[in-house]
Amino acid sequence: MNKRKIINDPVYGFISISSDLLYDLVDHPYFQRLRRIKQLGLADVVYPGALHTRFHHALGAMHLMGLALKVLQEKGHLICETEFEAAQAAILLHDLGHGPFSHVLESVVMPGVEHEAITLVMMKDLNRQLNGRLDMAIQMFEGTYPRRFFHQMISSQLDMDRMDYLNRDSFYTGVIEGSIGADRLIKMLDISNDQLVVEEKGLLSIENFLHARRLMYWQVYLHKTLLCAQAMLTQILHRARELTLSGHELFATPAFTLFLHTKFTLTDFDNQPDLLQSFNALDDNDVWASVKGWASHSDPVLASLCTMLLDRNLFKIVFYNNPPGEDILNPFRERLIASGLTEEHLTYFLVTGETINWAYAKEQDPIRVKMKNGNLVDIADASDIPTIEALTKIVRKYYVCWAKNVSLRG
Amino acid sequence: MNKRKIINDPVYGFISISSDLLYDLVDHPYFQRLRRIKQLGLADVVYPGALHTRFHHALGAMHLMGLALKVLQEKGHLICETEFEAAQAAILLHDLGHGPFSHVLESVVMPGVEHEAITLVMMKDLNRQLNGRLDMAIQMFEGTYPRRFFHQMISSQLDMDRMDYLNRDSFYTGVIEGSIGADRLIKMLDISNDQLVVEEKGLLSIENFLHARRLMYWQVYLHKTLLCAQAMLTQILHRARELTLSGHELFATPAFTLFLHTKFTLTDFDNQPDLLQSFNALDDNDVWASVKGWASHSDPVLASLCTMLLDRNLFKIVFYNNPPGEDILNPFRERLIASGLTEEHLTYFLVTGETINWAYAKEQDPIRVKMKNGNLVDIADASDIPTIEALTKIVRKYYVCWAKNVSLRG
Amino acid sequence: MNKRKIINDPVYGFISISSDLLYDLVDHPYFQRLRRIKQLGLADVVYPGALHTRFHHALGAMHLMGLALKVLQEKGHLICETEFEAAQAAILLHDLGHGPFSHVLESVVMPGVEHEAITLVMMKDLNRQLNGRLDMAIQMFEGTYPRRFFHQMISSQLDMDRMDYLNRDSFYTGVIEGSIGADRLIKMLDISNDQLVVEEKGLLSIENFLHARRLMYWQVYLHKTLLCAQAMLTQILHRARELTLSGHELFATPAFTLFLHTKFTLTDFDNQPDLLQSFNALDDNDVWASVKGWASHSDPVLASLCTMLLDRNLFKIVFYNNPPGEDILNPFRERLIASGLTEEHLTYFLVTGETINWAYAKEQDPIRVKMKNGNLVDIADASDIPTIEALTKIVRKYYVCWAKNVSLRG
Amino acid sequence: MNKRKIINDPVYGFISISSDLLYDLVDHPYFQRLRRIKQLGLADVVYPGALHTRFHHALGAMHLMGLALKVLQEKGHLICETEFEAAQAAILLHDLGHGPFSHVLESVVMPGVEHEAITLVMMKDLNRQLNGRLDMAIQMFEGTYPRRFFHQMISSQLDMDRMDYLNRDSFYTGVIEGSIGADRLIKMLDISNDQLVVEEKGLLSIENFLHARRLMYWQVYLHKTLLCAQAMLTQILHRARELTLSGHELFATPAFTLFLHTKFTLTDFDNQPDLLQSFNALDDNDVWASVKGWASHSDPVLASLCTMLLDRNLFKIVFYNNPPGEDILNPFRERLIASGLTEEHLTYFLVTGETINWAYAKEQDPIRVKMKNGNLVDIADASDIPTIEALTKIVRKYYVCWAKNVSLRG
Repeated sequence: MNKRKIINDPVYGFISISSDLLYDLVDHPYFQRLRRIKQLGLADVVYPGALHTRFHHALGAMHLMGLALKVLQEKGHLICETEFEAAQAAILLHDLGHGPFSHVLESVVMPGVEHEAITLVMMKDLNRQLNGRLDMAIQMFEGTYPRRFFHQMISSQLDMDRMDYLNRDSFYTGVIEGSIGADRLIKMLDISNDQLVVEEKGLLSIENFLHARRLMYWQVYLHKTLLCAQAMLTQILHRARELTLSGHELFATPAFTLFLHTKFTLTDFDNQPDLLQSFNALDDNDVWASVKGWASHSDPVLASLCTMLLDRNLFKIVFYNNPPGEDILNPFRERLIASGLTEEHLTYFLVTGETINWAYAKEQDPIRVKMKNGNLVDIADASDIPTIEALTKIVRKYYVCWAKNVSLRG
Repeated sequence: MNKRKIINDPVYGFISISSDLLYDLVDHPYFQRLRRIKQLGLADVVYPGALHTRFHHALGAMHLMGLALKVLQEKGHLICETEFEAAQAAILLHDLGHGPFSHVLESVVMPGVEHEAITLVMMKDLNRQLNGRLDMAIQMFEGTYPRRFFHQMISSQLDMDRMDYLNRDSFYTGVIEGSIGADRLIKMLDISNDQLVVEEKGLLSIENFLHARRLMYWQVYLHKTLLCAQAMLTQILHRARELTLSGHELFATPAFTLFLHTKFTLTDFDNQPDLLQSFNALDDNDVWASVKGWASHSDPVLASLCTMLLDRNLFKIVFYNNPPGEDILNPFRERLIASGLTEEHLTYFLVTGETINWAYAKEQDPIRVKMKNGNLVDIADASDIPTIEALTKIVRKYYVCWAKNVSLRG
Repeated sequence: MNKRKIINDPVYGFISISSDLLYDLVDHPYFQRLRRIKQLGLADVVYPGALHTRFHHALGAMHLMGLALKVLQEKGHLICETEFEAAQAAILLHDLGHGPFSHVLESVVMPGVEHEAITLVMMKDLNRQLNGRLDMAIQMFEGTYPRRFFHQMISSQLDMDRMDYLNRDSFYTGVIEGSIGADRLIKMLDISNDQLVVEEKGLLSIENFLHARRLMYWQVYLHKTLLCAQAMLTQILHRARELTLSGHELFATPAFTLFLHTKFTLTDFDNQPDLLQSFNALDDNDVWASVKGWASHSDPVLASLCTMLLDRNLFKIVFYNNPPGEDILNPFRERLIASGLTEEHLTYFLVTGETINWAYAKEQDPIRVKMKNGNLVDIADASDIPTIEALTKIVRKYYVCWAKNVSLRG
Repeated sequence: MNKRKIINDPVYGFISISSDLLYDLVDHPYFQRLRRIKQLGLADVVYPGALHTRFHHALGAMHLMGLALKVLQEKGHLICETEFEAAQAAILLHDLGHGPFSHVLESVVMPGVEHEAITLVMMKDLNRQLNGRLDMAIQMFEGTYPRRFFHQMISSQLDMDRMDYLNRDSFYTGVIEGSIGADRLIKMLDISNDQLVVEEKGLLSIENFLHARRLMYWQVYLHKTLLCAQAMLTQILHRARELTLSGHELFATPAFTLFLHTKFTLTDFDNQPDLLQSFNALDDNDVWASVKGWASHSDPVLASLCTMLLDRNLFKIVFYNNPPGEDILNPFRERLIASGLTEEHLTYFLVTGETINWAYAKEQDPIRVKMKNGNLVDIADASDIPTIEALTKIVRKYYVCWAKNVSLRG
């Protein structure tokens, strides 16, 4: 056997693929596709280094899972080899169902279909191909495996998914203030009463983790310029679909054409065996190649939006504490019409939206701290420090995006 | 003016864009295109983090140029603001003429056209648009500006281009042994007799730089697996063009179609004003989107090669100290024919090539060391250490790449 | 001139000494003494890497001052060369008056004398030696220089002192969660109305800075084990002085002997010219060499405490939300007496104390944010986020330290 | 059991102490003493960050040993828990016998006694105290344990000692070009025929390791300024001993006094049980405290040298390719006499010496590479690259150190 099993990773140094099953999963076309899907979609309009892929993130999460499981083993918890591998497999595959530009594309071409659901469809398909070797991994992913903590390590407010993506996004954006100290966090993990918990001496580390997460939301995921670019891509896709459905001829890559013509539901994935292959053929390149093709389309709305996005001539944005009413929106409309837009095109160049930053959702499955006396306490109650409480507040903002410098071509 | 002028960079922390001209250059579609062209082409088949773009590299090189010029100013050399900006502009634009997958694509669709030549065409076009504001930058780039050291900082064995790409490639691949210590190198730069030189106390730093460069060649640029992937993409492009020219219908993105049908020369760029725009529309996404489209083409050779590349089912490679003769090649041929290939298809699945690793070319414009007594000496003579001498040797290897696991589809 | 002017620094890469005056200051015995005084005193009992000195910190603060002043210059503020050098000199010298183990030693041998006061005495003495070349630096340090922001950069809640020590302490302890992102913070600085301010887009950076500061207090400066070691050294010094004053013979280094025999006041420093030289001769080595000598002293209290500290057999600690009363202290006393201590020795093995963690003191000179509309606002009011408010709370805790495993030798 | 078992380390993040025996060893006064002995002695005169201790280095080497053993286990080599712990114990204790300022002090106060020999005395003493729990560790250390590779991991040209100290010294000096990529090196280790070997694909990593080692010698261990400071301390100790032996009264710390009066041999350590305790009481603080005391001694030679060292008014140095003869030395002598020195004092202010930089000693136990065909080859033969050959050359230089600015006090 000469399978390559060590992968260079600027974030962790090296990532080891520690079993044949894991190697085969990484090798599978479903997983290789993730090489062509960027983790942060359009974020490189703000952070030119943020080009890392879901492929790399999934490997990183698998790596952290391995570290965490070893910590738990060293603290005396019995985790057998099969469980170890299943947990690594589950986290490795947890993002399989993501399409390109995730929420942007999904909202237009597959509204209502959550990527977690597609992930499960794909995992089950893989499981069939692998003759059931993913049975336990799927149970852990779905939360039906008896030992609950495995699911919490895959999906909770302190899972390996978050740890890797915060770490990795902080690293590649260069927003070092968002660094979460994953190394120390992981050393503080423990299991109590079958739940994933944090040792009391890890309290400050958790606090720091939640702060870093909140900072990453403002600084990266909800960055003004990124919201603008996302709004633009969303409107591009709406327009492209509209033109397609109304019979206009429109260049698109083969993989993309199908999804521009039809809105699919989750049931379609079950009923049409080919659909999964089509979905698997879709990645960032299809979207960019199509947008580039559309930049010279005869429809001035589509062509303008695409050219603006490609040349980074982006929308502008204003934030509000309340949903903006007509009094706020009307001046924007007037300005856009003054610049030559017609009423019917306004909607493509003027967009409203909402952002939510919720560092810690106390109401959900909480982060549990194991006090020195053995008690399990919600992190928000364990800290005698008022800042944690502050992080449980939802911060909601509203915004208006609009094209400041638009001139329709064509 | 509210131009955004500070850019996060994981490598250097922050990069400042320090003048309006530089900002306008960064903002121009010619430069924004570089966002969609990866610096290392296919290298992510080996190093999943190596996704950084020529856009980011160019900014980094501009940043290092700024640092270096400040060091020279602090050492008492007069560099006026116009020169400072021109040198930064020149290095910023030095890779403008790169197409996607640089050497691979150029060798097939524009054989004989060097990217430096296209860079110059584009710089001159930009200069027209900017009413001559790039005059001095172009002189520096071409080497006609009287103060020679500016050109040496842009293009020589110790230029800011190399410093940034070695630094950046080492960082994003995670091959930390390739780190060159740019920070210290730059502090050791000086000018003597109008030439770029290194202070004597920087001798070890230069040695380390040359070693790191050599290591990066073996470990990254000439990595076996990368050579295989490049060989595959080259054969894919050859086949696609062959099919195109022989009249087969072949999907390709609009930007790519033109280049698949015609081989262009440098003169074409001068004679056909539109060609530059077409070239500017071409980026990595066109190649990938086309390769993905071709994976289901009816031609079994094209479809197989594309599927293999997409699923990372790559060629194998063997190295030789001499060009492999028939005695070496024949067994490969027989094996491929045994696996079902016809004679005429052999050439697509069996490739030979040559690699060169030349850490320091003494014969070219040398790296000059300024000894404490003021003398200028070639680095290879300044060092009393035999290792530098060793680095001046050209190390040449030959290889055979072939498809170990091929089965033609269709 | 061949003065060595570039110093390697693991934290910032390189630190440049940019003028002759600064070089002469660094070269002076007053400043060289700081090489022998650790920044964090006893902290290496917890963090073995935390051995950095006040010398290194002072250089680092000078480096950051240089970066910050350049940022301000680039934003159009006129800062002349003399001011630039004076500000760097002032921050370079700001810790000159620190003795070894700062607060611990001061509290015993020079109670009531603040190190800032001695710093000023030493700066003035240096100024005499340098014929007034420090006049402006002293004005900036004292806050009498007309342009207020210079003093704020030397001493305020956002000064270069804090930035460097948080940065550096985080680096050398390995508590990476305490990293403050100084690079970005500094780029956000501005001057408005002669005050040091932060641009609105630096809001999150300031928040992160305050959080990091709070975390460093809990994790490092107020770490339980460090408090224990400090309590032990304090009791050792008390006992040594007591024995000295009561006529026992006691080894001590020449420099230390003087301070063990006499309590000095600030006036003594003015009246006795030699005292400054004696103070300057005192550093960490005197304390450790003496403690080691005392480990074999015939007094069992002194010998036990010293041996315990040297072998890292440390006190234990318990925290309380209120000052511990007799009900809490008595059980400790009984336990210690049961282990063989007499009443009169109790005080050396049972210590109470108080810790304060105050991340942001709104009442003091606030951190000012310059909003996009030009208004200056206190950071606590600028943020619409409740966490900043939380950081303005003083968190006060009380503790009892005691020798869990004591057996008097002798 | 609540033993603290995770230690923050800026170099590796965290170091775990993974067994009770290891914890007890770290806790022992013999090992705690290493907290007070700097790894690089006087190197902070050049690199202010280089204050790390032998304590920290020993922990780091134990950490790397743990990583390396796990790699070997994962490659299928059976290493039982007892062996694992013994190997970690052996490397943890390998520097126990180092005194302060190692070679400098040893050459004066214990000429001919090698620190490895004292290490062994101390390990055996510890073994007695621990009832034989170190039996296997001592066998591994001495090279008598049957499985040879354990000894090679403790002491060879690729041992965990070198890996940690190169890593750590590079980190704390800030000489990042000296970084050896330990992470990757360790992953390439294997065992073949009971020998420690490196996989063929680790060839470049080994080359880089040897280059980094060579660079660290020139840049750090043999740095001109460091050689000067070492020469000064050597002469200080010679003078102090001379004065002591000739009956002058001389302050010294209790621990140091003994060693100034007597020259000890290795046999003394066996015959005098107390000598080990005296040796164990000696650390950097004794030397510095004594040097500071001597700075005001009535002997002008001693006082001058000490003051010069403390104030960093250091000797100058010149290098030669051959041992300097009288023609070279005489001008120095004349110059010193002209500045007021007498003939008999010359020897304290004029010192000659020799440096050796030998990156790879082919003649000694070689670094073995395991080729893909299974053969074991010396690294120098495995590489087809001429640079390795160059590294096997011994580079020898000679120097003269002298006091450029001396004026005898008193």
